[in-house]
Amino acid sequence: MRIAIDAMGGDFAPAEIVKGSVAGARDYGVDIILVGPQDLIKKELSKNGGAGDRISIVHTDEYLLEGEHPAYTLRKKRNASILVATKLVKEGKADAVIGVGPTGGVVASALQVLGTIEGVSRPVVGGPFLGFAPNTMVMDLGGNVDCKPEMLLDFAVVGTVFARKMMNIPNPTVALLSIGAEEGKGNEAVNSAHALLKKSGLNFIGNVEGYDLPLGKANIIVCDGFVGNIVVKYTENLGKVLCKWLEERLKNKISDTELKKMVNDLLVATNISDVRGGGPLLAVNGISCVGHGRSMWQDVAHTIEQAKTAYERDLVGAMKAEFAAVRAKLASSAA
Amino acid sequence: MRIAIDAMGGDFAPAEIVKGSVAGARDYGVDIILVGPQDLIKKELSKNGGAGDRISIVHTDEYLLEGEHPAYTLRKKRNASILVATKLVKEGKADAVIGVGPTGGVVASALQVLGTIEGVSRPVVGGPFLGFAPNTMVMDLGGNVDCKPEMLLDFAVVGTVFARKMMNIPNPTVALLSIGAEEGKGNEAVNSAHALLKKSGLNFIGNVEGYDLPLGKANIIVCDGFVGNIVVKYTENLGKVLCKWLEERLKNKISDTELKKMVNDLLVATNISDVRGGGPLLAVNGISCVGHGRSMWQDVAHTIEQAKTAYERDLVGAMKAEFAAVRAKLASSAA
Repeated sequence: MRIAIDAMGGDFAPAEIVKGSVAGARDYGVDIILVGPQDLIKKELSKNGGAGDRISIVHTDEYLLEGEHPAYTLRKKRNASILVATKLVKEGKADAVIGVGPTGGVVASALQVLGTIEGVSRPVVGGPFLGFAPNTMVMDLGGNVDCKPEMLLDFAVVGTVFARKMMNIPNPTVALLSIGAEEGKGNEAVNSAHALLKKSGLNFIGNVEGYDLPLGKANIIVCDGFVGNIVVKYTENLGKVLCKWLEERLKNKISDTELKKMVNDLLVATNISDVRGGGPLLAVNGISCVGHGRSMWQDVAHTIEQAKTAYERDLVGAMKAEFAAVRAKLASSAA
Repeated sequence: MRIAIDAMGGDFAPAEIVKGSVAGARDYGVDIILVGPQDLIKKELSKNGGAGDRISIVHTDEYLLEGEHPAYTLRKKRNASILVATKLVKEGKADAVIGVGPTGGVVASALQVLGTIEGVSRPVVGGPFLGFAPNTMVMDLGGNVDCKPEMLLDFAVVGTVFARKMMNIPNPTVALLSIGAEEGKGNEAVNSAHALLKKSGLNFIGNVEGYDLPLGKANIIVCDGFVGNIVVKYTENLGKVLCKWLEERLKNKISDTELKKMVNDLLVATNISDVRGGGPLLAVNGISCVGHGRSMWQDVAHTIEQAKTAYERDLVGAMKAEFAAVRAKLASSAA
């Protein structure tokens, strides 16, 4: 398998990207194509024992800077490293692309070059949001707002395939996030999506409420990205506020080691996206993985593993098949 | 001041309602009209030292039961205690009405009998949601979904007056809950409401994100009731999950008393609506206060105090004046 990696993405590029790529190539037996200024990349490679057999370079001088408007800048920087790396997938020269930021640049490149699966308008962002419910993903987390009912259905399809292929959950349960458990207790989009999901053939268990979020009641909790984004960001900072509260309350009452462990466990449980590596953008017509901007080399290696899993298990093909199955099911129930 | 109280509302009616009414009448120097079956009420009054000068009874045999659909049932039970109590306000025989559940019954009675302030379609539900941000209220908390931008503006007006009159905050700050700090980073309703709020004359500070919720960045955080309901219910149960986590992690590491205090403090901080008493329904054209269904006599007394404050500070008149001022401001900026 061949993975194109934007060597210039993220806060610690190119050093951590190159180091993580060397580790990933070795640990997961994949070929890596590093895209960026070759002098910089070669310098970093030499610090990590050289390129070896599995690592090659595709040179480009341009790359996105943090703070630049991604979609707009990409129109001018046509040789930006993330764009070049993504094109390698399109041209069949790589099987997946990885970028660890700016997220908008990875998403915009994926959209421009690879496009989305037929019938889906934008990539879906989703994932676990709380350590107390490790097998629950919220979809969408902010990529899509003002969602039509059909988009909420899309999130359910995408989430189902992701949970099956990437989280090893055989028959993932799907729920709609709403303000009441009964059908009809939601806003217009949720109420209409409820009717669609019931007929979709997915493992739909109905509505869940805010109260149910920490309980892991479903594997995929579907919501508008506006709601999902607020829930996940609230979780992150509430976690941080509570860590400070714990430190104040427990200082000199338990050992420093115990306190540090408790605080760290709570931080990990509430700031999941900071601690897990990156993963594939969902509903993209090809494998494009995005990692956190703060990714260190271990995170880059982990994202390589995720890209490999997505490739070997044919995540994209499985999504297309599931979309086809759900659409057929809905068409037959309408007939 | 005269307050009509539904003696049959809530989980512990009529005993706790009557006991709380006796305490409230005494402590706050108000006259109370208890509405419900007079035999039951008299029996409870005799347990609490009798009716005294300040307490009278308006008899009715009918009342709402928990689990009955409030609006539907009120159409048949035309002498339901909450409806009769609310009518006393309309008829000028009382200055405020209190019901401690079912909430839907109090809301439906207020809507049917008193109506809302001109230009507002439904009562607004809002209040503090997190002890770490005690001066921050979220509006709406679930009464209003699929909100038009104008409704979000209404929540800001209602919240501003509530914070000024009931929370003693002279110049309350208002923010819109969104998925990005900058203007334009929201859904359609939020983006349009942003433009309205900027011109409203209210103390609008812009968008806040989920990340900002625990930080108390604004006194009133405005959102669609769908979002607010999810945030508050999520907070409540995440708090409970974390209390259990604390108990497991700290058992036998700190004293039972200390642990109990920590757990209780966290529960209070995350389950605010359980611990504070009731308050006025907002944007109703009259003072109608709703308390938690689990209200004990102290909560009933506290709700009486809230009703008294709302009356003495002319909460309803102040809302009407603020709505008029904001509408004039918007009209002049459009001209």
